[in-house]
Amino acid sequence: MNLITESKLRFLLKKGIPNPFILKGEDKLTPAAIDFLRDRHITIKDHRLADSSLSTETTPTIFMVPVGVSNRHVHLAPEDVDILFGKDYSLTPLRELSQPGQFAAKEQVSLLGPKGIIQNVRILGPSRGETQVEISKTDGFQLGVYPPVRLSGSLEGTPGLTLIGPKGCISLHQGVIVAKRHIHMSDEDAKVYKLKQGDSLLIQTSGERPTIFMDVVVRVNPNYQIDFHVDLDEANSAGLKTGDLVKIVGKNGEFFT
Amino acid sequence: MNLITESKLRFLLKKGIPNPFILKGEDKLTPAAIDFLRDRHITIKDHRLADSSLSTETTPTIFMVPVGVSNRHVHLAPEDVDILFGKDYSLTPLRELSQPGQFAAKEQVSLLGPKGIIQNVRILGPSRGETQVEISKTDGFQLGVYPPVRLSGSLEGTPGLTLIGPKGCISLHQGVIVAKRHIHMSDEDAKVYKLKQGDSLLIQTSGERPTIFMDVVVRVNPNYQIDFHVDLDEANSAGLKTGDLVKIVGKNGEFFT
Repeated sequence: MNLITESKLRFLLKKGIPNPFILKGEDKLTPAAIDFLRDRHITIKDHRLADSSLSTETTPTIFMVPVGVSNRHVHLAPEDVDILFGKDYSLTPLRELSQPGQFAAKEQVSLLGPKGIIQNVRILGPSRGETQVEISKTDGFQLGVYPPVRLSGSLEGTPGLTLIGPKGCISLHQGVIVAKRHIHMSDEDAKVYKLKQGDSLLIQTSGERPTIFMDVVVRVNPNYQIDFHVDLDEANSAGLKTGDLVKIVGKNGEFFT
Repeated sequence: MNLITESKLRFLLKKGIPNPFILKGEDKLTPAAIDFLRDRHITIKDHRLADSSLSTETTPTIFMVPVGVSNRHVHLAPEDVDILFGKDYSLTPLRELSQPGQFAAKEQVSLLGPKGIIQNVRILGPSRGETQVEISKTDGFQLGVYPPVRLSGSLEGTPGLTLIGPKGCISLHQGVIVAKRHIHMSDEDAKVYKLKQGDSLLIQTSGERPTIFMDVVVRVNPNYQIDFHVDLDEANSAGLKTGDLVKIVGKNGEFFT
């Protein structure tokens, strides 16, 4: 076994670590080494199974991808920022998100539905074209709002709810969705992985509740960091947290064989 | 196509409907027909793919199984019924559950953890040896209690919480679990499906969030009705509700081929 530790990677860093970082033969990463690569947005590509097989043609190449768990959150149109927080208000970045330029804002709102209220819901910035509220199905039962599973931006025919901020409130007629799970990647990642925008992946988790998420949509953009986005229901059902690694095990309904 | 409607099944009922009910060739069941069979605890066995193939040896036999979604609930030891509801109190059955003899009781309690309270939590009867609280991971975050994923009855080393009833309260030292997903079946079902107690199944859902649940444990008992038990996180993450049908697609880590 060739154990790759964090110290070995730190040493390698001076010469430059290849991205993706390819595991071969009997390579094994320590948990600290996985964190080290992840923190530097270096993708791990697992060629170990292919190496140990007689036929490399038909054996799987396993791609490891980090998980990003999204709690309920709100994207606001600029005019809605004005209503909720005051005229010409600017959102205050609290921390960066995995996708470049995106941030969790200091600002929060309450969501009010026919059956209940959820307080302290994070705004994500920067503000964008149309206000969009992303909740889990569990949240939906609490609020009495039953949104469909949709990709971000696909809001036609979705339900609304009431947003309450410190300076005003808004009754949305539409804009509430349960986010469809998806994977972000750059054009370069897509090329390495032989994937394209709109491909549907099979993604397998490990741990105490192992699960294969089917129909995970690929979203490609030159600025995207590779990241598998799930909501809290999906994370809890599979025992996942942000930063865990999962495997891409198939594409467009077929397992890699 | 041979459309099997509820009326056709009602007509068949006089002669007796075979259990399992086998779908062959171009058979197709209407949703009402599926409900009709399910209400009578008749298992649907899908041999259609096998029929349409040239080689019946290698094609899958797909087993359809109904889903039972478990919300948070509590099983009480007799002495704890006394403390929470009063000396020699008897639980009042509200409705039968899918497993014979089990019932949802009229009685409810509150769960109190370090971070929060959840009210109106259903008691399931009859009372049993040791008190056991089954919550989802989502509930756990609300309560500030982080139980492991366990099969029912496996309580060693699990956390506790406080139960509050109309006549008293109990601070449990252990007994809180997140239920490990499992499938109940009778000895007869197990024989038909070539399964045994402790087998681990791969179960596939359809719908807008298609998912394969891996490591679904088989529990066999002469009195069990066939039923795939998941908690609310699992149900919401896959868009499942009680009575939906799912497919057994593999066993002990291997897909049926």
